[in-house]
Amino acid sequence: MPHPFFFVRCEGLRVISADSGAAILDEQYRPMYLVASVSVLVEPPYREPSLRIAEPIFKEVDTGLEVIVHEAELCRALLDKVKADVVHLDMTLGGVTIEDLSPVELMNMRASKAGRQQILKILPRLRKIAGEIKRLYDIDMLAIGKESVPVRIAELTVGAEAILFACHRSIEQKEEVLLGLPLNCQPRVIGDRVYLHSLIAAEHDLRSYAIDTQGILTKVKLTETLNPVARGFRAIKIKPR
Amino acid sequence: MPHPFFFVRCEGLRVISADSGAAILDEQYRPMYLVASVSVLVEPPYREPSLRIAEPIFKEVDTGLEVIVHEAELCRALLDKVKADVVHLDMTLGGVTIEDLSPVELMNMRASKAGRQQILKILPRLRKIAGEIKRLYDIDMLAIGKESVPVRIAELTVGAEAILFACHRSIEQKEEVLLGLPLNCQPRVIGDRVYLHSLIAAEHDLRSYAIDTQGILTKVKLTETLNPVARGFRAIKIKPR
Amino acid sequence: MPHPFFFVRCEGLRVISADSGAAILDEQYRPMYLVASVSVLVEPPYREPSLRIAEPIFKEVDTGLEVIVHEAELCRALLDKVKADVVHLDMTLGGVTIEDLSPVELMNMRASKAGRQQILKILPRLRKIAGEIKRLYDIDMLAIGKESVPVRIAELTVGAEAILFACHRSIEQKEEVLLGLPLNCQPRVIGDRVYLHSLIAAEHDLRSYAIDTQGILTKVKLTETLNPVARGFRAIKIKPR
Repeated sequence: MPHPFFFVRCEGLRVISADSGAAILDEQYRPMYLVASVSVLVEPPYREPSLRIAEPIFKEVDTGLEVIVHEAELCRALLDKVKADVVHLDMTLGGVTIEDLSPVELMNMRASKAGRQQILKILPRLRKIAGEIKRLYDIDMLAIGKESVPVRIAELTVGAEAILFACHRSIEQKEEVLLGLPLNCQPRVIGDRVYLHSLIAAEHDLRSYAIDTQGILTKVKLTETLNPVARGFRAIKIKPR
Repeated sequence: MPHPFFFVRCEGLRVISADSGAAILDEQYRPMYLVASVSVLVEPPYREPSLRIAEPIFKEVDTGLEVIVHEAELCRALLDKVKADVVHLDMTLGGVTIEDLSPVELMNMRASKAGRQQILKILPRLRKIAGEIKRLYDIDMLAIGKESVPVRIAELTVGAEAILFACHRSIEQKEEVLLGLPLNCQPRVIGDRVYLHSLIAAEHDLRSYAIDTQGILTKVKLTETLNPVARGFRAIKIKPR
Repeated sequence: MPHPFFFVRCEGLRVISADSGAAILDEQYRPMYLVASVSVLVEPPYREPSLRIAEPIFKEVDTGLEVIVHEAELCRALLDKVKADVVHLDMTLGGVTIEDLSPVELMNMRASKAGRQQILKILPRLRKIAGEIKRLYDIDMLAIGKESVPVRIAELTVGAEAILFACHRSIEQKEEVLLGLPLNCQPRVIGDRVYLHSLIAAEHDLRSYAIDTQGILTKVKLTETLNPVARGFRAIKIKPR
């Protein structure tokens, strides 16, 4: 071995990440409204969130990448409460540091032209937030997306919180709701918690949950179904009791 | 939320879909003959077929897309027996309606040139069948392919029925047969049924089966193996007792 | 059926394959040193290795494809001990026979330009080894890579052996080591064996192992973690007791 061996003494990265999603579906199982945004703190061994901020959004699905700016803000808000070593954004650009990403570099990256144009539109605002986080907490915000386990945990947390938000809405309006969950996951209600388990085989020990502090789970009937027109996605039908 | 909330009152889509496959393999595990075609009715929660038409085909593997025309005919035949809301064809073109797909539109779609040429050859016949189905039953035939759960259930049904067809052939000819199953599934014989379970993690509750009405399963010995040259595929060796 | 039916009488392919990998990670979970190379014999039903040669390598990660030449040598070395029907190399070129692969053919294949250039550099040496294997044992060496189950079993064997090699190093140097495992697998220690199970759903019955003949597993503490920056990958922290 040509170089000195590398030894690990650190206790592991503490990561803050964020995601938005879960969608109210129409009768054809088409997504209509995004339901929730969250930011989470994830610590070793990276199986559950340690802390979170969750918000109902109920925005139309075709809002482009605007939602990512809000996710970055939620990460900054969580950093006001707790320490972390790095921020993972749900944007897959090879793990590049947002603050250092210039428009020219972005345009030279491998991504669809339309995708890069959309990112270009939000880049100034993202860089501003990344700059603030760097200045205040001295940590980086990375565009790591699909490669990140904490982003996946944020996604599962979105799904769990979205179930509670959608139940609330269903009761309020006294109507059935069909809620589309994130990719490859399955809900389970235990007591006052909704767990959302990853169904990806190599993520069998990865999950998130949301806590029903208002007892709304007792007021609805939940039925799980596969989404027939989108393999890997499940939906739950929520019906007021 | 800018628009009125969307509420679901329907009981869910009833889907008819079709597929062909499973293959007799040679000693090098190369596919030689396609074994079965089926059409199925799939209803919520989309975990098993409710009804089916199954045919042994034993056609050479390199027959191109001809087999899809026959699958469309099997869908129409199943519609003569039972009501449905939509037909899903095993052709992945973003869920476009077959009847509305012109040759010009097809050529502008994202797909390999060779693939589009092959589809072009069968398109007039597919559109004819789609037109008949529209006229007779007022429902659409969609080129949704890989995105469709009912297409996956048709694929699992093909595998289950193919096991019975291949057992029959093995007994008839008093010879061993090596049968290659569809991607990511595993057979299980229980009583007079051959179940085929999906091995995709997010499809753990998805399966199909075939019923052995002639007692042929008692006349053969089945041995399961992984296909060493095609990851994700399993095969069964069928040997007359 | 237009042609005579095909019947299988052979007892199944015996395959020799090889792989290198598992990596010492730094604090950011970045791979620094490759840990092990192995060649394995895999027989039907292709679920475990029957025989192996394993070597610690501890080479810097960016050594390009040089490591594949050594894998081919390990395959040849295993053939000196045991019979087989074919050799599977961990290089994904559609299953082409290495000995017949000319530089011109290689350049016409679908692969990134950089990838083909790297293969071109090692091709003469690979062809030389393939030629020797053909002459001595009359079997082919195929560039089948990701499609091969025996290559996957070689990969799992690399991971299992790498755990023992890294434990040894950790004890020797009295320092913690963070070892990154191959994609989609999970370790389990039972007695004097380290098993490495595939976590891919359709490979639930596929695994490998390494035997700890020197009792080093009793001298370390192993902790499993997900790799936060590479989804699907797990790592183990090795700490001398």
